[in-house]
Amino acid sequence: MAKEKRNLMSLEAVCEFLRANDDYLILTHKSPDGDTLGSGFALLLILQSMGKKARVICPDPIPEKYGFFVSECENPESGADKTVVAVDVADKKLLGALCEVYGDEVDLTIDHHLSNTGYAKRTYLDDGAAANCEIIFSIAKMLSAEINELLALCLYTGISTDTGCFRFSNTTEKTFLAAAELMKIGIDAFLVNRLMFETKSKERLALEAEALGNIEYFFGDKCAVIAITKEMYERTGCKDEELEGITTLPRTIEGVLAGITIREKENGGYRVSVRTYAPLDASEICARLGGGGHIRAAGCEFKGDLGIEKVKETVLEQVKAVMEEDCAGITFN
Amino acid sequence: MAKEKRNLMSLEAVCEFLRANDDYLILTHKSPDGDTLGSGFALLLILQSMGKKARVICPDPIPEKYGFFVSECENPESGADKTVVAVDVADKKLLGALCEVYGDEVDLTIDHHLSNTGYAKRTYLDDGAAANCEIIFSIAKMLSAEINELLALCLYTGISTDTGCFRFSNTTEKTFLAAAELMKIGIDAFLVNRLMFETKSKERLALEAEALGNIEYFFGDKCAVIAITKEMYERTGCKDEELEGITTLPRTIEGVLAGITIREKENGGYRVSVRTYAPLDASEICARLGGGGHIRAAGCEFKGDLGIEKVKETVLEQVKAVMEEDCAGITFN
Repeated sequence: MAKEKRNLMSLEAVCEFLRANDDYLILTHKSPDGDTLGSGFALLLILQSMGKKARVICPDPIPEKYGFFVSECENPESGADKTVVAVDVADKKLLGALCEVYGDEVDLTIDHHLSNTGYAKRTYLDDGAAANCEIIFSIAKMLSAEINELLALCLYTGISTDTGCFRFSNTTEKTFLAAAELMKIGIDAFLVNRLMFETKSKERLALEAEALGNIEYFFGDKCAVIAITKEMYERTGCKDEELEGITTLPRTIEGVLAGITIREKENGGYRVSVRTYAPLDASEICARLGGGGHIRAAGCEFKGDLGIEKVKETVLEQVKAVMEEDCAGITFN
Repeated sequence: MAKEKRNLMSLEAVCEFLRANDDYLILTHKSPDGDTLGSGFALLLILQSMGKKARVICPDPIPEKYGFFVSECENPESGADKTVVAVDVADKKLLGALCEVYGDEVDLTIDHHLSNTGYAKRTYLDDGAAANCEIIFSIAKMLSAEINELLALCLYTGISTDTGCFRFSNTTEKTFLAAAELMKIGIDAFLVNRLMFETKSKERLALEAEALGNIEYFFGDKCAVIAITKEMYERTGCKDEELEGITTLPRTIEGVLAGITIREKENGGYRVSVRTYAPLDASEICARLGGGGHIRAAGCEFKGDLGIEKVKETVLEQVKAVMEEDCAGITFN
């Protein structure tokens, strides 16, 4: 949506709005991550510290690993829900199961996605913020909220997860300054990072070892493919939901522009994840296969029992075609 | 060594010393990593900007991946070498091949290892610095050196690599503030992070797959061990210097308090890396085996052809002993 169609606010106006109302319902996006949850629970704490009533609801169950801050917050099960605020939600469709009831009832969205559709009555947007929690942190300070350890943990989690622990290209000077301020409060950032980034099950590690052991290279090693079969899940005892982040692995290999992960689904069919480096367009590869996504991270699915070799062959055909378009001048053996 | 046996200096005195002398020889530790190289080349740039002569030498070949700053620095092949400074070198033995010539000739060591043995004539030690490059950054500012992009890249690389990209428990408010200042200079931190953390050779990946496939668990899965043999290097074509960071892998497994990596050395002997989580003291484990390091990251070496099983057994004995002291109340099956 064009920027002018969104009812954009200043940060001051957001604070004024938050001061002026009461009985807040805070919505996060579906498949919740550290940034939407960190934003939601941080805003809950800020509003409660101002003497307001507030609660957070999430369209999907909240993964246990966020329990270290979620379960420490006092989050009422019901409320008057007079004022609805969505955090880190770029599109009302991302409200998932909550879209039908609240999709057209959002009074304010606080977001950092340039793609925000302007679905809410009021929009605060800062696409220069690496994480939505950077914005919530600014709001906390502008409202002079007391930033205690729990609030700092919520904010740090969002900032750390949305930047891959300060590794991604969205990380800025402001991100580091925010992290420094949060460290000063005395949070155990190491614990957060350990939970978010460094904890794998034995089963995951076993499956990863097997998948990496069977990695295949194509097109002069510019493309790497890992394939995960049902047998591998069974043999290692690893479940699909333990595989978060595995799709980034094949792209980490020196010289690889396209990292492909093919996973056989439990109830039939295949899930394909494509991760690329410039100049290769992952969303174009996946669009040709009926999927979509971002320019460097996209996905598609295959139905039925094609066999993993056939899936691989079909995907590689399109990788090759898009590589030939996007990577002119790069030599493929 | 007891602290009083080291001739400790203030940061002001270090700056005075650097101003007062000329013709510097800067030494890094063997098996050079981002922090010793970042420190060495940053100090080179600082001294050169003060009109001093200086050069860096490293006991081992510098891995290619550091070329983005190493090859941009003007590093003379010879010099008068009147004043010898070691950076990030805790023990003269870590000078490796340079120890015989320079081990007792170091005029100043700038270090952040509490275990620094006091081998140098003068020692500056700040064990609160996450990376030695944090200290060098403070020196640069105290000396009013111009911090250009190249110098900032050296410093960022050291800070980023020694903190696992701001992930480890050594990361402090000061670390983030330093990173913020360096970002402000306009460095491409994403490129550094991609090179340091997200780029592995095919050979490394093959060796990693094999090592993870053979991981062993001990003491109720509280200890995980990976062992890398000469045969594995030969079979996969991976070189030891491509293995940076592999030592963090065994500790990433859920429930593991001690992650041990044993590597057979090319010319005989074994290198052991110990990574722990609280409350387990890695430096105590390694001290008992003739090594040393930090509280959560330490190492030691074994000479001769003991066989990897014997090395493992010897290390595990000390892991068990220190676990029994440090982890009272934690159940080991």
